[in-house]
Amino acid sequence: MHSLDVFFNPKSVAIVGATPKTGKVGRVILENFKRKFKGKVYAVNPKYREVLGVPSYPTLKDIPEDIDLGVIAIPAPSVPQVVRDAADKNVKGLIIISGGFSEVGEEGRKLEEEIKKIIIEYGIRVIGPNCLGVYDAFSGVDTFFLPEERMRRPVKGPIAIISQSGAFAATILDWAAPRGIGIGKAVSYGNKIDVDDIELMKYFEKDPTVKAILIYIEGLKKGQGLKFIETAREIVKSKPILILKGGKTKRGVEAAASHTAALAGTYELYKAAFKQAGIIEACGFEDLFDMAKALTTQPPAQGKRVLVLTDAGGMGVMATDALESLGLEVPELSDSIKSVLKEKLPPHCIIRNPVDLTGDATDERYKIVLDTVLPSNEVDVALVITQMQVPTLTEKIVDYIYEATKYRKPIVVCMTGSEFTEEIAKKIESKNIPVYPSPERAAKAVWALYKYNVYRTRVG
Amino acid sequence: MHSLDVFFNPKSVAIVGATPKTGKVGRVILENFKRKFKGKVYAVNPKYREVLGVPSYPTLKDIPEDIDLGVIAIPAPSVPQVVRDAADKNVKGLIIISGGFSEVGEEGRKLEEEIKKIIIEYGIRVIGPNCLGVYDAFSGVDTFFLPEERMRRPVKGPIAIISQSGAFAATILDWAAPRGIGIGKAVSYGNKIDVDDIELMKYFEKDPTVKAILIYIEGLKKGQGLKFIETAREIVKSKPILILKGGKTKRGVEAAASHTAALAGTYELYKAAFKQAGIIEACGFEDLFDMAKALTTQPPAQGKRVLVLTDAGGMGVMATDALESLGLEVPELSDSIKSVLKEKLPPHCIIRNPVDLTGDATDERYKIVLDTVLPSNEVDVALVITQMQVPTLTEKIVDYIYEATKYRKPIVVCMTGSEFTEEIAKKIESKNIPVYPSPERAAKAVWALYKYNVYRTRVG
Repeated sequence: MHSLDVFFNPKSVAIVGATPKTGKVGRVILENFKRKFKGKVYAVNPKYREVLGVPSYPTLKDIPEDIDLGVIAIPAPSVPQVVRDAADKNVKGLIIISGGFSEVGEEGRKLEEEIKKIIIEYGIRVIGPNCLGVYDAFSGVDTFFLPEERMRRPVKGPIAIISQSGAFAATILDWAAPRGIGIGKAVSYGNKIDVDDIELMKYFEKDPTVKAILIYIEGLKKGQGLKFIETAREIVKSKPILILKGGKTKRGVEAAASHTAALAGTYELYKAAFKQAGIIEACGFEDLFDMAKALTTQPPAQGKRVLVLTDAGGMGVMATDALESLGLEVPELSDSIKSVLKEKLPPHCIIRNPVDLTGDATDERYKIVLDTVLPSNEVDVALVITQMQVPTLTEKIVDYIYEATKYRKPIVVCMTGSEFTEEIAKKIESKNIPVYPSPERAAKAVWALYKYNVYRTRVG
Repeated sequence: MHSLDVFFNPKSVAIVGATPKTGKVGRVILENFKRKFKGKVYAVNPKYREVLGVPSYPTLKDIPEDIDLGVIAIPAPSVPQVVRDAADKNVKGLIIISGGFSEVGEEGRKLEEEIKKIIIEYGIRVIGPNCLGVYDAFSGVDTFFLPEERMRRPVKGPIAIISQSGAFAATILDWAAPRGIGIGKAVSYGNKIDVDDIELMKYFEKDPTVKAILIYIEGLKKGQGLKFIETAREIVKSKPILILKGGKTKRGVEAAASHTAALAGTYELYKAAFKQAGIIEACGFEDLFDMAKALTTQPPAQGKRVLVLTDAGGMGVMATDALESLGLEVPELSDSIKSVLKEKLPPHCIIRNPVDLTGDATDERYKIVLDTVLPSNEVDVALVITQMQVPTLTEKIVDYIYEATKYRKPIVVCMTGSEFTEEIAKKIESKNIPVYPSPERAAKAVWALYKYNVYRTRVG
């Protein structure tokens, strides 16, 4: 058993600071566990014998059964004593939600040091303090103390998130929920007195439910850089890591320093480090999830040659611009492929790359092009634009695109529109093919599939 | 009366090629007019005395009343005769939807020449051929021949669109509809044998319902460049023009050449021309509408100094990065402003720029900062981030942000989340304050407000 398992798959949990008082952190967390957690839950609060129907004890030590994980949501000065109790009780892991430690000054720093000593002596693992902690959609562990009506939880899925900013993690989970983005695990580690980003990356590498690791970071600790790079470089051989860096410009770095006390360090250094590590950098959180969607559903692209297939010329032009700007290629097709297409498609279709099936495109035309071009060795990936405003397209397009995945080349779809379009888009995504609303975002996803392959197959 | 008024505000319209046959262009267009157009509608089709309840005549000339606008949706070879009939009938304008002209080769080019001669002789104005024509949400003119169930129509609003690509215009209208983006007018001009982008820009300059002109273009006609620049440069003194250029890269330009026969010309030339003209360039259609939303609701930013106000540190960092990358400034606040804020805000708030109200932010804290900083001469615009996951924020935030518009400085809001967030976002937007889902997109909107002011106030 891995020592971090206790945070994601504990058998029993005690919420220290659980309370029936509305709006309090200790209440929201207890409600989270009551609703979703499959193991045993206990409250620790000397004022109550029971909190919201959950048995409550004066201290951790009073709980009559073994406790795997303790969640601490009480004022900072009282935390060291709880950590001592946890040591006595043989608790394996603690998530310390409470703030008021090194982030507020010298007094808090001392409390942190005190805790550190105890956990090292007793081998207790700790996430926090000053964090939102852990969200695990599979086990029901959820210490994010924002109530569901403000922060929705996303569906289970292949994405794991590691965030230096708690608010960012919360925002992202809430944002992802109505969009159907599947997130299995998220960690906000706060002051990271024990568990840090590097260890979490390594842990998620071994987790079979995780297909991509997404990181928000403002800065690494002093001396951590090399280890971060080396760890990531190993992990990307089996799983993609995507990163969003906060603090890139002069004023951004200063803002990050006030926010997470992130080590300044110029962005150029980080950028070079990510590249060396094989980490794919996103330029915003939408971009982060756009790329993750492709990487968790499609095979990597074995090369940079893209087939652009469209029923809307302008969208084909925009996709081509975007792909080429990203260093990808939209190669001319060979005469032999072109002559096959010319034979099978109406004469007004534009047979080059992009292939433009024009405004009376049928589902069958898409099938013809995919079946002709994808099996060839002329392209490595397909960017398929289906503007569903064209009345001759039907739902059959979903199956035709899905069937083309048999050629084992990645396919990325772009479609823009309202309800009708979104219905079809959902059906395509239910077949595990990613759909994007703009040619630029689809192109960026293709780029990620290519770039990840480069990193994945790098020697050494 | 302007000679283009006939396309947007005709009193009577004849649909040449109107038909009861399902799925046909002539039927969709007739249905559009029947449903929404406030003037008189006639069908022209020798096969029927009536089409869908609308009186039908063998030719334009047989209609017993005056016709302002003719819409032509019949095969290309029959079009010149209809244009002659229109001349005899004294029709003022024609929208020629039909394709099969210069875009298909020599034969079609000749038909186009024939039409040109007639319209010049008789002074008939023409949009098209080979186009989707005109959509006017105010008058109900709608020649976009895609049925509502495939292509929704957006609500009335201050945006006018001029598109070289018909499919792009259709896609954009459909996409805009469920997003509540207000579009008043859209024109797809196709082969532009008469009315072109330049004349449409000038027309929209004088239209009081239009607050921003959005253009999709792949290329200008030979020799048109200087006139385009000079016209735009004049217009931007009163209204912003935003452009999305298709065909920026080598392969993109080639694709555009097959699509709209756009003159190649390197993108660098276009880019320089747009700059000289004072046209704001978008890097994708989401970006185009993001910027338009700010420009149609907020005053231009008189300078580049931005106040970033947030309750989520990470989002503040990202916004600062994005603003600075775009050449804007997030200046440190003066000691006098800081001391006022320190007095009024709790000690754990981070008082610099970004101002971080932290995870227990209240509506009142936002009000305090806006009321203190905006009236000062230290910033020109505010980017306000309100992560509504914070349970201490309420709907009052809407009014507080709205009240701050009294300082006559532009305000742009960023909020990311699910239903609860989107509800509040809608309320803020109903007060004509733009809301964006990511700090990067909000920052780009701020940039547009600044950039437009530079162009608007340029001398000469």
